[in-house]
Amino acid sequence: MTPDDIAGFYATRAELNPDDYIELDFDFECAGDPREAAAHLCSEQSTAQWRRVGIDEDFRPRFAAKVLELHAEARQGFSTAVECAVRGPVHACRVTIAHPHRNFGPKIPNLLSAVCGEGVFFSPGIPLIRLQDIRFPDSYLAAFEGPRFGIAGLRERLQAFDRPIFFGVIKPNIGLPAAPFAELGYQSWRGGLDIAKDDEMLADVDWCPLAERAALLGDACRKAAAETGVPKIYLANITDEVDRLIELHDVAVANGAGALLINAMPVGLSAVRMLRRHATVPLIAHFPFIAAFSRLATYGIHSRVMTRLQRLAGFDVVIMPGFGPRMMTPEHEVLECVRACLEPMGPIKPCLPVPGGSDSAATLERVYRKVGSVDFGFVPGRGVFGHPMGPAAGAASLRQAWDAIAAGIPVGEHAASHPELAAALQAFGDR
Amino acid sequence: MTPDDIAGFYATRAELNPDDYIELDFDFECAGDPREAAAHLCSEQSTAQWRRVGIDEDFRPRFAAKVLELHAEARQGFSTAVECAVRGPVHACRVTIAHPHRNFGPKIPNLLSAVCGEGVFFSPGIPLIRLQDIRFPDSYLAAFEGPRFGIAGLRERLQAFDRPIFFGVIKPNIGLPAAPFAELGYQSWRGGLDIAKDDEMLADVDWCPLAERAALLGDACRKAAAETGVPKIYLANITDEVDRLIELHDVAVANGAGALLINAMPVGLSAVRMLRRHATVPLIAHFPFIAAFSRLATYGIHSRVMTRLQRLAGFDVVIMPGFGPRMMTPEHEVLECVRACLEPMGPIKPCLPVPGGSDSAATLERVYRKVGSVDFGFVPGRGVFGHPMGPAAGAASLRQAWDAIAAGIPVGEHAASHPELAAALQAFGDR
Repeated sequence: MTPDDIAGFYATRAELNPDDYIELDFDFECAGDPREAAAHLCSEQSTAQWRRVGIDEDFRPRFAAKVLELHAEARQGFSTAVECAVRGPVHACRVTIAHPHRNFGPKIPNLLSAVCGEGVFFSPGIPLIRLQDIRFPDSYLAAFEGPRFGIAGLRERLQAFDRPIFFGVIKPNIGLPAAPFAELGYQSWRGGLDIAKDDEMLADVDWCPLAERAALLGDACRKAAAETGVPKIYLANITDEVDRLIELHDVAVANGAGALLINAMPVGLSAVRMLRRHATVPLIAHFPFIAAFSRLATYGIHSRVMTRLQRLAGFDVVIMPGFGPRMMTPEHEVLECVRACLEPMGPIKPCLPVPGGSDSAATLERVYRKVGSVDFGFVPGRGVFGHPMGPAAGAASLRQAWDAIAAGIPVGEHAASHPELAAALQAFGDR
Repeated sequence: MTPDDIAGFYATRAELNPDDYIELDFDFECAGDPREAAAHLCSEQSTAQWRRVGIDEDFRPRFAAKVLELHAEARQGFSTAVECAVRGPVHACRVTIAHPHRNFGPKIPNLLSAVCGEGVFFSPGIPLIRLQDIRFPDSYLAAFEGPRFGIAGLRERLQAFDRPIFFGVIKPNIGLPAAPFAELGYQSWRGGLDIAKDDEMLADVDWCPLAERAALLGDACRKAAAETGVPKIYLANITDEVDRLIELHDVAVANGAGALLINAMPVGLSAVRMLRRHATVPLIAHFPFIAAFSRLATYGIHSRVMTRLQRLAGFDVVIMPGFGPRMMTPEHEVLECVRACLEPMGPIKPCLPVPGGSDSAATLERVYRKVGSVDFGFVPGRGVFGHPMGPAAGAASLRQAWDAIAAGIPVGEHAASHPELAAALQAFGDR
């Protein structure tokens, strides 16, 4: 690129109408001039050839992505091995780019293609890049539906206020027929769960068909709700081929599911948006595939970007890798994803963050302290269904732990008079 | 895990019915005992808790993924920095796992959840893992439609045999209204392109609506075909929200598109499978998002896995990052993706590989020699539409280069009597 070519991809915020642009933060490492690398990054993700041959025109003023800010720092070589990295003096850079959304419109697949596509990951001189964050103008967000229920709607359905929402993943996750599976769900609701859920791997299979499972779980759910006097939800996993989602929604809801689980990336965020327009119950996201591009600090896409996009697509609840070494996710990243669910997002409602992974009554206080509010979901699997006294006791142990936390009583002390909690702390406490 | 727990996740091939299992090759780095890490990897991706509390049962014989082969080699620490990596003696491992597909069935989202999901990327002791390859039994493949046309069907439509298929990405990619955009396509067909295509970033936008673009390009395509006596195809990008794909297919095809481009991962492979069941023209995949999880050798998912899945979903053509430093993809990886398109896959037809990136008449021979057959597509952008003599000359330069290669004449020598080729070599030859 000539110096003039490069200058065409730089702007100040004052020169742009903020309503017309999405802002993107990238960290990248480049070989060669960082200022030119950042210009290439803009060119490749927008108007890669901005004039026809032999015609005096320039599409950049209207269609080019523009560098707003660039900070570059020299470093000794690339931080992470890339087989085909270019050579030259290396800089680590943080860049903020304004990308004109008129190039693609308020459509999730086209948005993903623009901000996580060929232009971003194949930009000259930049073998390592990570999309760290994304910000939308309210005018763009207004074209999206977002969550239908959100946190407030889910709390209303459960009549559960001023406390976390208690989920549990029915285990064994794979292999149980519908009848014993429903019995486990029933016990967990009786013990105090709000929402008993299918594992993200348990979908519509011939050895446990969704329609039968939803019918039996729906019966068990209604029974537990009547007996306890408290609303309960069966969360059915309808992850399946896209052309079955609407049908499975209808089947599951008609049979008694009160919310639906969808593996967001495997099904696709756009299919979720389609389902959102049809859905009559809350939609809950699970996180398969996301770690494949979000774990490393130097490459890929930060998981909070995916959290924001799941909220945008219409999920009322986002299950995400939580705290503790088991989930291999830095604490700051979990908190960034939690905030991406809760913080203002124009007209898009907040969704409930559920940071999960090897949880139990023994980890509830830690999660609550880290999140810093009651607006989260808590989702043990074995912590409820592997409890040594069974699922009802496992669920009860969570509620006992929360009673203690809410009352300012040390959880260990409360366990002295609550055998379910004591058993949970003994079984899971050293994890 | 106890030694008995671990043993439950190991098997020999002779003990398993191959029709019941998908085989997965992973490379991973673990802290601690590799044999236990591999057992965890199986447990987490299948039956994570294989019995109910207090009941003597074991779901592993029927539902567990099993280690078939494991090779481990000690190494000094992890190769790639992971903020939350566990500690302990590190091994680099290659494992082959048999995963029972009855756990989820012949459904793309559930397959992705099983082989690229939480169980794979959050397995205890394994912070670094890459899914290197996947093999399906024919009985599983038989449930999929695969490409409708495949290579043979596309060649038939174009009446183009025993040579590569010549694509071109109309440029400027973003910003041109439909009329001048169609004029560029017309010129390129006249010059010798088989298929003129929309950029993967150009979809249905108000400044160049798909219906209008398809109508004008369709007219131009029919005119060029009539004038040259050779079939031509306009490849329209219908990447959009999932609930518009069928409508946009119908609009584009009715107006004159002869094939459709879909950004596979942004739209979602399952939505592509849905479209495949409806489509009356060839479907062409573009590769945004895939690099975000496939570039690094030590983490994520090998791109050939995604190539196989795109073929399975029904794409007739797969555009992929090609040769040369510009695309930052090792030559062996490009060739592995090319082979994934062409090699036998049970009842699933071969699809056409299109390794692309900064190509022109100057790179055609190199690509042909590397691929080693004529069964590939060649897709320049600027190499046709940035040709100094214009798009017709750009397209002609490709055909001239191929004529020379096919006749065993050095391309540079052929250029002496072919000014379009000479100009291309001069403009693009030192890249």
